[in-house]
Formats: sequence, structure tokens, C-alpha cells
Amino acid sequence: MERRMDMRRRATDFDVEEQFNDNLLSASHADLALEARDLASKETGGHGIEGLLSHVEEDGEIKITRIRVENAEAGRQIGKLPGNYITIEVPGLRHKDSQLQDRVAGKFAEVFEDFLADAGIAKDAKVLVIGLGNWNVTPDALGPIVVENVMVTRHYFELMPDHVSPGYRQVSAVAPGVLGTTGIESSEIVQGIVEKSKPDLVIAIDALASRSLDRVNSTIQIADTGIHPGSGIGNKRKGLTKEILGVPVIAIGVPTVVYASTIVNNAIDLMHHHFSRQTSNTKEIMGLLDNLQEQERLELVKEVLNPVGHDLLVTPKEIDQFIEDIANIIASGLNSALHEAVEPDNAGAYTH
Amino acid sequence: MERRMDMRRRATDFDVEEQFNDNLLSASHADLALEARDLASKETGGHGIEGLLSHVEEDGEIKITRIRVENAEAGRQIGKLPGNYITIEVPGLRHKDSQLQDRVAGKFAEVFEDFLADAGIAKDAKVLVIGLGNWNVTPDALGPIVVENVMVTRHYFELMPDHVSPGYRQVSAVAPGVLGTTGIESSEIVQGIVEKSKPDLVIAIDALASRSLDRVNSTIQIADTGIHPGSGIGNKRKGLTKEILGVPVIAIGVPTVVYASTIVNNAIDLMHHHFSRQTSNTKEIMGLLDNLQEQERLELVKEVLNPVGHDLLVTPKEIDQFIEDIANIIASGLNSALHEAVEPDNAGAYTH
Amino acid sequence: MERRMDMRRRATDFDVEEQFNDNLLSASHADLALEARDLASKETGGHGIEGLLSHVEEDGEIKITRIRVENAEAGRQIGKLPGNYITIEVPGLRHKDSQLQDRVAGKFAEVFEDFLADAGIAKDAKVLVIGLGNWNVTPDALGPIVVENVMVTRHYFELMPDHVSPGYRQVSAVAPGVLGTTGIESSEIVQGIVEKSKPDLVIAIDALASRSLDRVNSTIQIADTGIHPGSGIGNKRKGLTKEILGVPVIAIGVPTVVYASTIVNNAIDLMHHHFSRQTSNTKEIMGLLDNLQEQERLELVKEVLNPVGHDLLVTPKEIDQFIEDIANIIASGLNSALHEAVEPDNAGAYTH
Amino acid sequence: MERRMDMRRRATDFDVEEQFNDNLLSASHADLALEARDLASKETGGHGIEGLLSHVEEDGEIKITRIRVENAEAGRQIGKLPGNYITIEVPGLRHKDSQLQDRVAGKFAEVFEDFLADAGIAKDAKVLVIGLGNWNVTPDALGPIVVENVMVTRHYFELMPDHVSPGYRQVSAVAPGVLGTTGIESSEIVQGIVEKSKPDLVIAIDALASRSLDRVNSTIQIADTGIHPGSGIGNKRKGLTKEILGVPVIAIGVPTVVYASTIVNNAIDLMHHHFSRQTSNTKEIMGLLDNLQEQERLELVKEVLNPVGHDLLVTPKEIDQFIEDIANIIASGLNSALHEAVEPDNAGAYTH
Repeated sequence: MERRMDMRRRATDFDVEEQFNDNLLSASHADLALEARDLASKETGGHGIEGLLSHVEEDGEIKITRIRVENAEAGRQIGKLPGNYITIEVPGLRHKDSQLQDRVAGKFAEVFEDFLADAGIAKDAKVLVIGLGNWNVTPDALGPIVVENVMVTRHYFELMPDHVSPGYRQVSAVAPGVLGTTGIESSEIVQGIVEKSKPDLVIAIDALASRSLDRVNSTIQIADTGIHPGSGIGNKRKGLTKEILGVPVIAIGVPTVVYASTIVNNAIDLMHHHFSRQTSNTKEIMGLLDNLQEQERLELVKEVLNPVGHDLLVTPKEIDQFIEDIANIIASGLNSALHEAVEPDNAGAYTH
Repeated sequence: MERRMDMRRRATDFDVEEQFNDNLLSASHADLALEARDLASKETGGHGIEGLLSHVEEDGEIKITRIRVENAEAGRQIGKLPGNYITIEVPGLRHKDSQLQDRVAGKFAEVFEDFLADAGIAKDAKVLVIGLGNWNVTPDALGPIVVENVMVTRHYFELMPDHVSPGYRQVSAVAPGVLGTTGIESSEIVQGIVEKSKPDLVIAIDALASRSLDRVNSTIQIADTGIHPGSGIGNKRKGLTKEILGVPVIAIGVPTVVYASTIVNNAIDLMHHHFSRQTSNTKEIMGLLDNLQEQERLELVKEVLNPVGHDLLVTPKEIDQFIEDIANIIASGLNSALHEAVEPDNAGAYTH
Repeated sequence: MERRMDMRRRATDFDVEEQFNDNLLSASHADLALEARDLASKETGGHGIEGLLSHVEEDGEIKITRIRVENAEAGRQIGKLPGNYITIEVPGLRHKDSQLQDRVAGKFAEVFEDFLADAGIAKDAKVLVIGLGNWNVTPDALGPIVVENVMVTRHYFELMPDHVSPGYRQVSAVAPGVLGTTGIESSEIVQGIVEKSKPDLVIAIDALASRSLDRVNSTIQIADTGIHPGSGIGNKRKGLTKEILGVPVIAIGVPTVVYASTIVNNAIDLMHHHFSRQTSNTKEIMGLLDNLQEQERLELVKEVLNPVGHDLLVTPKEIDQFIEDIANIIASGLNSALHEAVEPDNAGAYTH
Repeated sequence: MERRMDMRRRATDFDVEEQFNDNLLSASHADLALEARDLASKETGGHGIEGLLSHVEEDGEIKITRIRVENAEAGRQIGKLPGNYITIEVPGLRHKDSQLQDRVAGKFAEVFEDFLADAGIAKDAKVLVIGLGNWNVTPDALGPIVVENVMVTRHYFELMPDHVSPGYRQVSAVAPGVLGTTGIESSEIVQGIVEKSKPDLVIAIDALASRSLDRVNSTIQIADTGIHPGSGIGNKRKGLTKEILGVPVIAIGVPTVVYASTIVNNAIDLMHHHFSRQTSNTKEIMGLLDNLQEQERLELVKEVLNPVGHDLLVTPKEIDQFIEDIANIIASGLNSALHEAVEPDNAGAYTH
């Protein structure tokens, strides 16, 4: 006899994740285009992928990688849609250095402003910022915290247009909640809001899962391809894309969690490199593990971990502070990038 | 020269309130129908108002007043739309008695279930619960806290209808934020969500302003007239009504704040009663104040207080605990009233 | 038969307040020396009080009043202990102007540093900051929030003294909770901590009750007389003074609540002034109320309000934001005043 | 030239951990006696350890293991002090089943009451509950959350002893903060409070690190050996023991975090078991890894992970909800175990 839902539980998104979400996040899934590319190129033995352009630039502690997926075939190979992806990596963000945080906010603002220009977004385009994720789950609260710190101005334009100073554009911001706590797909909620408030552009902020503990809370990805089903931490069965919303969607994501299985897999990888620097006979040390393709090995790790329910999404214990810091960087950066009148060096004053 | 907006401030709803809201809440405004009626009947010298029916019932510490505004003229006289209003008053809620809280949740469930039936709402009508108000302003957070504790089920019906036990109906729940933090009228956001998720009924929860400190945090009002511009604490220029949303709207409100000016006015009133029990010569003691109509006196008090910006909305210092308690009562009561399978006596288990 | 304690209630400080605290806060009580002086001088018909020195200085929007109670007799007359009291009043703090907040933090730091010097506190005196009050009651959470934002350094001196940069002194900080949530007098907890950690000076932060809505959240008082039983919002039956702790105690207080009865009384006062500017015949308008001494009138107001339990401590509805802002001002100011290496103009960077 | 402390950072416990704590938590460290025993017996090839008694009992989904370390030599072998350790394991706690939570609270109360009796603690012994850990770091906030939900009564006994109902004992509760936010060892703060408030028993609640993701948030350990330096998540250089405080100390711990390195090590272990069920030739598959002692392999994993700073403490993404749930279980259980008048089946009513 089939099991009936136990409504006694408090309604959270976890119930739903457990029940519907199991196969959404496959082992080969990578939220970051950077990781998807590395994964793919490892499997092709390092051969370049046609139609996949990368460019890396470093500015002190800040590393910026631009990836362009030029066509569907390149997209298929790395599991990402055609489009532009920028990754900003700053390992130093793990060390709570407030001056570095200010620099990263400034850099993010600069990069984001250029990204808007390249995407052909007008300087006075009306923007709706959407903070995806669940307030009550710290590593999933990135979007809602950014929304809380973004400077909203749309109501001034609507209600007292003559009083708005030059240098500002119309910005609104909503955190639509998650399916498990609202009972409604966040995609549907956003569609409804877009139809009523008629922005020219949606910027969607989301927490991501990374394949590497290194990148958690120290990496920001910008993409012009929107939010796709199955991406991010939560449980999105419908996406936020230009096709669905009718306006361009730029996604900003930060990896805040990592799968236990990828930690293990990465460790085995590191061991391989470690031993191969010391001996040519890594096979003796690592056994057959050494010969497996990354993908096969990951499946093996999951097969081993899953029977006892091990494959949890985990997050560093200091997540509360990290999420505040990176949300403030993004909010400051957005305030400065979206409003000419807000200077990069005092954008922080607009967040709390 | 006109003053330009100071964007440097953190974007909150207060800016907007200050700038647009000044004359929304007039001295004669009463969010509670009960208070509106008392105010009106005092001015008519206690004469009954045609088309205004009242009925009071007491169940131990719980007092329930049912007011029916039968026509537009009666509505005009008390400043309320025609419709049905129920007020549940429980002064004992101020004393953190958890057994009383359970009893009130049970009573509220019972009253609310009957109210739905009287309003012709079907047992399987799909419900969208809207929690109005601002998360970050404790006395305005009633709606969002109720939403967080309401049991949502709509996604189960949408995604795995065969697995839903009998005795549940479709419930979804959203806290749309406030104009000052989203830049969008909450009314517009709700309209968008209603169009996409297609509920049969909207239940809107809102914090109210009372004319009496007594009623703050100890009173629940249910009304079938929806939410109207200028009601509640916040700044609603557009309402949530059947006309706007296309489905019936039932409003649940709790007074959580009171105007400083009404505290003063009430005190002068009390003094009048106090002295009139001791002497027939209250005029000598109270001066001309004694002769003023309530409305004139309130205007006088406001005139006196306003020049120095005194007319604040104030709330008892224990508001944090009070708002949690009453939000839990409402959420428990709704869970039990909306789902047959949830028993009134364990409805508390479904909130956290 | 006597009533037994109802343990069923959640343990909070309110139970205790209700039961023990009733007569601690008399109508004539004023937490602010400024208000105590005004109250006393009003009763003496404006005659100066011997041994009571006042000095006022204004710096833009910031008004600083220094009151010195020179002897016990002057103290008795205003109900304050002999000592030095500084009040910083900034009505503009109500308007969320972040630049003004920075200026006030700088001014507070300057005033506080001088105050320490005048009190003979050495530049390297070890400081213990005590944040009195209850985390869970927003208007009483001032002390704990300041403690959370104060820069603590004592552990660096203890554990790695050779690595501490010049320009810092030893600072520790504790929020000891309140009697209702710990079961222990906060005074006893602080005594225990002082004996173990051996600071040279205790700085105690506390939320106060004001006699005027005007001063709530816009006034900071500094006093070298410590914390006395019955002062502040909470329920302190034992104080924090040099006699009890063995080291000097400087108190920093901010009024965050006001009694409903004092709002009424102030309004009557304002009406008196209002009418007396328009007519000499205020007596006709105000009745006998006009002739009563402030103290008698306040008693009358309380007599009238109390039977129905009206005399609540109330706080503005925006208390959440206000308390954050003023706690940040105090924490920034302390960081700058206590550590030479922290500049007034970037002290804010040390709070979050 | 040596690096000076960067005071610019926000003062948190992490700075301090990084700087002082590095070698406190060695690879062989196990906070849970259960894990320490398993680790030791694995190294002895499964031979029993003299002076180490274990007893396991299962009650439905609840597994209770009692370990008695009879002498110093047995303690040395498993790295635990002589004493009694009880571990309550309930894997089902991961699934938010509120009825199971109630059962576990009842069972915990029962076990804890017997533990007190076995330890010779009198029924009217005065208890001080200490919640160790940092409010602002979710997985470290277990102790403070328990303290917030424990029913405190000491002040009633002190202030109105004639009014206390029978069936209650004196309980007080304090969360002393962590070194990084107070600047004072929590051990010193507790010593000071014990000397002033004179309890007969201290119960210390702390978050632990586990060697296994399985046990995180689903395991409760009770021990009569107090809190020792280097145990738990935080950075305790001084313990809370009978020697230091002068009264018995019972520790209650819940693993809320796990080292990334132990996840990897456990996975390798699981692979070994996995393959050995399928083939006798695990060596070919696993290479030399197969032959390494657990301890050597863990060192190897750490050596591999550390160069890039991988060995983080991680926690499941749902930590916010888990920590609330288990803190409520412990608080309910304590309320029922400490006060005869509180029934196990309604103990939940005393927490919020």
C-alpha cells in the first residue's frame, strides 16, 4: 500500500525536495559554467571544445573568467545553454577582510555594468531584482538578503516622478519564497509580478551548489541565460528565462553549498595528483580508482554513499557570516551598477 | 526650491509613509468596525444606526461581537463598507497563558469555519493566504509570521494529486512585502499571483491600528469586505478586494499599534467618566475640554501634538512576544478551519 | 487562599516584573538626569537648585547638556545621585540620516573620551562593557546589541600579547541577560565576571524609560554614577556601582520606551502652553487640571489609567530600526573612544 | 617581519580559532565517546579494551549506548576521561517527524533523570544550565538556544519562596558567549557565576564535531565528566569540570558539524566494505589505501586536503531547522527531568 503524505510535518521545502527532486541534480550537474567547462574538458582529455571561448584576467586577489558558449553543440558538451558567463573568484573572501570586500563590491559593480552594456540593456531600463531561495535556510537565503539590501526606487518614479533626482533608474525587488513554503512555483509568482509591474529586465539572485569546497562563498557568477530548472540549491521545476518572462533575465549566483559526494571525489582527485607528483605508479597506490573517468568515479562514490543517505548538501559552519558578507557585496555592487548617482566607493552606505 | 529625495537613506517603507501617507489616516479613522461603530454611536448620542446590526456573545474570557453593516448609508455613518465583521476580544491574551491561547485558537477556528460557510465558500475552495506587512518592523510583521506558520498544500495537489490524503484542501501562502521595500504595490503583486495561481478565495492577514491600548494584541477582527486603501498600519494605496482580485477576500486583522493622540484622547475621556462619577461639576474640573465632541477634541489633541511631531504610532514594549503569540493563534486556527483533517485541539502542532 | 505561581507560562522577565516590580517605578521617577532636573525645577517654580550645575552646548543638530550634582542635598531634590551626567540630544536621529549618524558617533566618541579623562580613567585601563537587558524584547535589547558590535581585544592581550599592535587597550564585553531568563540577578553575574576578569573600569549600557516621546531613541546619557536599582526598563533590584563591583562604573543609557501616562501628562502640559499663548483664560479651557502640580496631575492620570491596566511602557512602531541605529552609534563611538588606533571617521567599519 | 593582528576584521571567534586553535583538534580527536571507542577498537583489531564497558539497548527507532570508562588506562586508550557516557542515536530525527521528536524528548528526560540519580544528585539539587557556543554561528548555537527554552525558577525561590509550588527545583541558565565575542574564557565567566549563585550541579550544553555525517543532528551524548579543553566546536582552552567549578558538571552534547576530511575518510572506508562484499581483491581496486590504518589514512587525507585549506568543518544545509528541533528536544527533556511537576508528555509546552 502506498504511503500517504505525512502532513503532520511542518511545511518546508525539504519535504518537496525529498519527494520530487531526487533526480534533478545528477552527478554531472555543475551550476557554475566554470566547473562545467573544466569537467567537460577533463573528459575530452583537455582538448578544447569548439565554440567555447574562455578569457581569464586577474586583478590582485580577484580572478575573472569570461566564458562564452557560442552555439548549442558547445552548450551540449558542457551542459550549459549558449550565452555569456562571468565568474569572479576571490579566495580571500573567506577571511572576513572588510577592505577586500569593498574592493570586490567595486569590481563586481564595474563588471556588472559592462555586462549590462554588452547585453544591450539601456541605461534607463527598469529593473526587477528577484531574490530566489528560502529565508529560513541560511545557505539558501542569499537572494532574500540581497533583495533586502538593494535600493528600491520604482515607487518614487510611480508616485512622485517630479521629485526623483537624476542618476537613478527604476528598481524594484521581490523575494518570492520557495515552493515548499508558498505552495506556488516561484517562477509563476515572478511571472505574475512581471506582468503587473512591467520591468525591462529581471536580475535573479540565487544560491548555487558547487563541485568544490574552495569556491563556496568566494565566487560570484553572472550569466545572461537566466535561471533554469534544476539549477541552484532549491527545487525549481520551472525556470526564469526570457522565454517565460518576456524580458531578458540576468542571473547572479554564488555557490554556498557542496555535495558530500563531490568533496570525496575531489579528495580522490587530489590524491591522484599528489601521488603522481611523487611516483609514476599511482595505480598501485590508488587501485582501479585511478583509471576511472571522473564521471564513473563520482557515480561510484554516490553509489557507495547513497544507501545510508550520505549525499547531503553541506556548507561551512561559518555560513551565517559568509552569506551576510557576500550578499552585502552583491547588493552594494548592484546599487552602484544600476544607479549612476551611486558611487562605487560609497555603495556600501546604501546597504545596512 | 523643492526638496529632492534623499536617496542616501536606507530604503524602507517609512520614507514613503512620511511622504505620501500623511492624510491617509485621519483622526476619525478606525480599523476595527467595533471602534468605528462606538465612535459613530457616541456622536449620534447613542442613538442606534439604521442598517447596523450588532450581536455580542461571551464564552468565558472570550467576547465575540458580530456587526453587520446592511447598506451603504449605515456604512457611510460608521466609515466602513457594507459587510460582516466579527471581533474576538480576549483581554487575557496579554498574560501569556498558553492554555488560554490554545482555547482562543480553537474558538477562532470554529468562528472562522462558520464565517466561511456563511459566506458561501465551498469546503474545497482553493485558498491563497496573503500576509501583508513588513518583516522588519515587529508590529507590522503579523501577516508574514502567520504565512510562515500556515500549512501549505497546493504544491502537493499540483505535483502528486494521487498521494494527497482526504481532509485537506489546496492552500498556498505568500508575504508580498511592502511598497517601501519592494517598490511595487502589494496589491499589484497579489493580483499577479492570483492570476497565475487561480485561488477561489484570498485570506489577507494585516496588522491594524487601534483607538485603544486595551485592544492592542488582544483582539482579532474577521471581515468579508477585504482590505481597503488606508487601512492597517502600512501604506496601501490600492486595496485587496473582490473587485480588484476577482475572487472573494476575507480580511483578518489584529490591532498591534495605537496612535499617541488616541491614548491622550482616551485618557481625557476616562477622566471625564472618572470625575462624573464623583461630581456633577465635571466642567469645572475639565474645562471646555469636557464639552467638545470626541472628534473636535481629537483634532485639538493632534493640533497640539503635531507641531513637535508627537503623533507616533506606538506599541507595547513586549510586542515581540505578543506578535508571536497571536500569529500562532491565527495560524493554528486557520490550519484547523481550512483542513477537516486537522483537529482544533492539535492544530498547534502544525505551527512551530 | 493565596495564588500559586503559574509555571506553565514561558519563563520571561515579564512575570517577574509584574510580581515584584510594581512600585519600583514611581510616577516621579526619571531615568534621565535632564528630565529629573526639569521636573524638580518646575516644582520649585523654576528656582535654581543649590549644588546643581548645568551647561548646554549646541553643535549643529547636536545638543549637549552637562549636569553636575555636587552634593547629596541637590541629589535628593532631583532624585539622582551626586555625580556627572551628560545628555546628547539629536532629534534628527529619528529620520534615518546615515551621515548624521556618523557625525553623532564621532561626537559621542569625543565626548566620551573626555569624560573618561575627567573621571581620571587611564588610557590603558582595562574595560569591561556590560550590555544590560533582554535580547528578546526589542526596546530592551540596546545593551546586548552594543555588546555584539563592540571590538573585543582582551583575549589577544591574554593569549598573544607580543602580537598586539599599539593603540589598542584591553576590552571585553558581556551581555549577562535578565533575571527572568537567567534566574540570577544580572548584578551578581557581573560581580562574578569582574572578580575573574579583573577590569579597571566597567561601562554598562542600558535602555531607559523617558518622560517624553521626543527623547525616545534620539538621546544618549552618560553618567559616572553607575546603574542603580529600579533604573532602566528592566527589573534591577541590585545595582552596578563602584561600591558593589569595586571598580568605577560608567553608565550609558538611551531612552527607548515611555509610559503611556507620561504621554498623556505631557499632552495636557502642551495644551496648557498652547492655550496660554492664545488666551489668559486657560483655566476656563483646561479646568482644574490647569492648576495641578505636575506631580499631582501625573498621579491623577495614573489613577485614571490604572484600573484598566493602561499604564503600559510603549515604544514607537519603528523600534527595530531605531535600536539598531543607535546601538551602532554607541558601539562605533566606544570603539573609537577606547582605542587610539581607531579613528572616529572609520569607527563604523568596526561594527557590522 | 611578523604580521600584526588585523583589528579591522569584525571580532568573531573565528579569528581566534584560526590563530590559536590549529592543533587542538587532531585527526584522532572524537567528541563522542562512542566514536572514540569504535576508533580505538578498530585499531586494536577489534579486541576489547580492559576497563571499558558498553551496553546497547534499542527502543523502536531510539538506540541507547552506555559506555563506562572504568580507569585511566582505558581512558587513555580511547582518549576519554574515566566516567559514564550515554549516547542516544535517532537517525529518524533527520526527517522532521514531530511525534518522534516528542518521543525522543520523553526518552531523553527518562534517561537523564536516571543518570542524575546514578550520579548521586539529590532531587532538590540546585542546577545551573550553561549554554556554551556562539549565538551567531548556527551550528554552534545549540547551547544558547537550549538556555533560551529552559524553564528558570531560581529567582522565584530567592524572591518569593513561599509562593513556589511543590514539584519544582531551583534552576538558573546562562549562555556565557565565546572567547571571540566576549574576550573572556567562557570557563572563567562560568566560574564567576558559580561562585556567586552557588548551584549544586552544572549542566553544560555544547555542540560537538562528529566523525560521521550520519550522527550529525541525530545524536545526543550525556557525560558525567564535564567539558574538556579542545572538545566541542569552539575554542575552549579551559574546561568546565568539577575540579575547576567545585561542583559536579554533566555535559550534554550534540554533533552538529563534521570535518570534510572525515567525510572523505569515511567514504574510503565505505568503499572498502562495498568492494569487499563483491570481491576478495579489494586491494587491486583500492590500491595501497586499502592497507593503511585508519589513522594513517586520515593523516594522508588531511595532508592532501590541507595545502589548499580544505579541511573545513561543514554542516548540512538544513542546519537552521535541525538545531531548533534538537534544542527543543533537550530543553523539553531537561524541564521534565529537573522538575517533578513537569510531565514528560507536556514538557513541550514549556518551550516555545
